[in-house]
Amino acid sequence: MQNRQITIAELPKGTLTEGHFAAADAPMPEPGDGEVLLRTILMSIDAANRSWMQGATYRDAVNAGDAMPTYAICEVVDSNSPRLSKGDIVAAESVWATYVARPAHKCQKLPDIRPLSHLMSVYGIAGKTAFHGLVGVGRPIAGETVLVSAAAGSVGSIVGQIAKALGCRAVGIAGGAEKCNWVVEELGFDACVDYRDPGMGKALRAACPDGVDVYFDNVGGAVLESALFSMNTRGRVVCCGAISQYDTTAPSGPRNLPGLVVVKRLRMEGFIVMDFADQDATALRALQTWVGAGQIKVQEDIVDGLDAAPGALIGLLGGDNRGKRMVRVGSDPA
Amino acid sequence: MQNRQITIAELPKGTLTEGHFAAADAPMPEPGDGEVLLRTILMSIDAANRSWMQGATYRDAVNAGDAMPTYAICEVVDSNSPRLSKGDIVAAESVWATYVARPAHKCQKLPDIRPLSHLMSVYGIAGKTAFHGLVGVGRPIAGETVLVSAAAGSVGSIVGQIAKALGCRAVGIAGGAEKCNWVVEELGFDACVDYRDPGMGKALRAACPDGVDVYFDNVGGAVLESALFSMNTRGRVVCCGAISQYDTTAPSGPRNLPGLVVVKRLRMEGFIVMDFADQDATALRALQTWVGAGQIKVQEDIVDGLDAAPGALIGLLGGDNRGKRMVRVGSDPA
Repeated sequence: MQNRQITIAELPKGTLTEGHFAAADAPMPEPGDGEVLLRTILMSIDAANRSWMQGATYRDAVNAGDAMPTYAICEVVDSNSPRLSKGDIVAAESVWATYVARPAHKCQKLPDIRPLSHLMSVYGIAGKTAFHGLVGVGRPIAGETVLVSAAAGSVGSIVGQIAKALGCRAVGIAGGAEKCNWVVEELGFDACVDYRDPGMGKALRAACPDGVDVYFDNVGGAVLESALFSMNTRGRVVCCGAISQYDTTAPSGPRNLPGLVVVKRLRMEGFIVMDFADQDATALRALQTWVGAGQIKVQEDIVDGLDAAPGALIGLLGGDNRGKRMVRVGSDPA
Repeated sequence: MQNRQITIAELPKGTLTEGHFAAADAPMPEPGDGEVLLRTILMSIDAANRSWMQGATYRDAVNAGDAMPTYAICEVVDSNSPRLSKGDIVAAESVWATYVARPAHKCQKLPDIRPLSHLMSVYGIAGKTAFHGLVGVGRPIAGETVLVSAAAGSVGSIVGQIAKALGCRAVGIAGGAEKCNWVVEELGFDACVDYRDPGMGKALRAACPDGVDVYFDNVGGAVLESALFSMNTRGRVVCCGAISQYDTTAPSGPRNLPGLVVVKRLRMEGFIVMDFADQDATALRALQTWVGAGQIKVQEDIVDGLDAAPGALIGLLGGDNRGKRMVRVGSDPA
C-alpha cells in the first residue's frame, strides 16, 4: 500500500494553474486513537475550492504547503474507533490524497446507494445545494420564472430541473452555444442564454418575457448585473456562489447594486448547504422522487485518477464540465 | 393670489447644479371636477428626488420641462370634491410650486398634529421609512449592533435612535468629524464613523467590537463595501437608498458582492416605505411613544422659501443637512 497526495505549492494570485500544485508520494497515514484510515474513492471538484485559496471563508484559510482540501467519499480500511467499521462508506472533509487518517466522529456514514457517485451528485452536495437554495431560499411558485447561471454545472443543472418539476419556467445562463444547446436539449430547460454573447441583455429579456422571479446566482459579477435588470418587483436572488470572482485579481461589483435592490424590493440571500442539514432528509426524498419520475436526469462528469485533480479544477473554473465534476481516485467496493 | 413654480430646465448627467432648474411665475391652477386647489406649506427634500432624474424607478421618469415633483403637505383652499373641504390639511404627490390642483382622491387627509413639520419628519416619510426598514426588514434584537449610514440624515438619525430604544448598540456613519460628533452627542448614538477618514475600515471595526448584525444602508457604493466586511454571519442589510450613486456618471458596485453575501449568509433586502402602508398606524404609535419618552429627539432642517428648493436639494446631496430637510413654502394655518 502506497500513499500519494497533492499539496498547494504556491497560493494563486490570479488565474489558477497546474504550477500552483505539487503531487508526490507520501508516508502512509497511521490512524491514532479514535481515528480511522480512509481509502479515497471520489473527490468533489467545486468552484468553492478556488475560493478557499482566497483566505478564510466559512472554513479556515488554505495555505501554501497544505494538502489541497476536498470533500470526499471514502471506504474505511482500518478503524481505531467503535463508531465505524472496516468496509463502511463515509463522507469526510479530506484532502487530495489516496489515503487519509481522520477522527471517526468527523466522518459521516453514508447509506448504501449505488453508484456511490450519486451520493456526490444528485443525492450529494450538488443536489442538496440546488434543493435547499431553490426551495428553501428562493421559494419559487408554479408559473414563476426561475433563472440560473452556470446552468450546465453541478448545481445549476439540477436547479433548472427542480424548477421545471415545480411548474416554473426554467431559463439557464451558460458559456457558449454548444453548452446552451445541451442545457435545453438534454436537461429540458425552456431556454438558455449565452453569457459570452454581446447581446446577452436582450437575449435574457427575450428568454424571460414575464421577467425573472427567482435568480439562482452561481457566478456574481457582470452576469449578476445583467440578471438584476431582468428581475421582477419582489424578486429573490439566491446567492450560492461567485465563480466569476474567484479566479481574478480584479473583482468587480454589480454597478446596479444596491440601487435596483431598493427600487425592485429585491431580497438577496446567501446560504451554505450545511445551513440546511436538518432538512437533508426532506431534500433526499424529493430528489429521489424526481429522479424516479424521470424529471431529473443525473449528470456526472467523472475525471480519472488523483493526479488529474488540478486539471479537473482548473478546467471547471473555465467551465469545461457538464453536470457534477468529481475525480475518481479508487473504485467503488463490491 | 400669484402662483410660482420650479421646473427642470435640463436633466443632469453628472452632478446636479442650480442651472438644471428654472423658477418662474406661473398661471394659477384651476381645479377641475373632483379636484382641489392646494396651497403648499412644506415640501420634502429627499435624496430620492435626485434618483427620479435617472429614469423610471418606482415612479415614472421625470423629464426636462416638467415641474419638479415632490411630496408635499398642503392646505385645501378650494374644493370641487365632496371628499375634501376648504381648510383640510393633506399630503400629496405634488410639484415645486406655491399652488397646485390635484384630484381629491389622490390626496391623503392628515391628522391635526402640530407643528405640521412633524408630519414630514418623525411622523412622516422619514420616521416611517426608518421604522418600517429597521423593524420590518432588519428586525434587530436587543443586544445586537445596528449600523446606519447617512446617520445625520432624515432617516438615519431616526434609525439609530430607534435602535437605541430597542436595546441595540447604534453606530452611525457620516461625513466629517463635526457631523459625527453631532450624531453621538445630540442623537445619542454609541459611536459614529467618518466615511471620509482613510482609516474608515479600522474605525468601523473599533466602533463595532462584536461585528454588525443589521446594516441600514442609505448610500451604497464604497461605504456599503466597507460595511459588508464588518457584517456578522446571518447579518441583514436593509437597502433603503444609494445616495452615493445618484449624483454621478460612474456608479460603482461593492466588489465583495455577492461573495460575502454567500460566505456570511447575509440577507439584503430592499423596501419602499409605501410597501408597509398597512402598518403605518403601528409605526405612528411606536414613534409617538418614543418621542413622548424622550428616546427620539425630533431633528428638522427647514429651509425657507420656494426659490431655495434647488439649493436645498443640492446641499442635501452634498450632505449639509441635519435631520429631516424640508422647504417651507407657506405658513401652518392657525
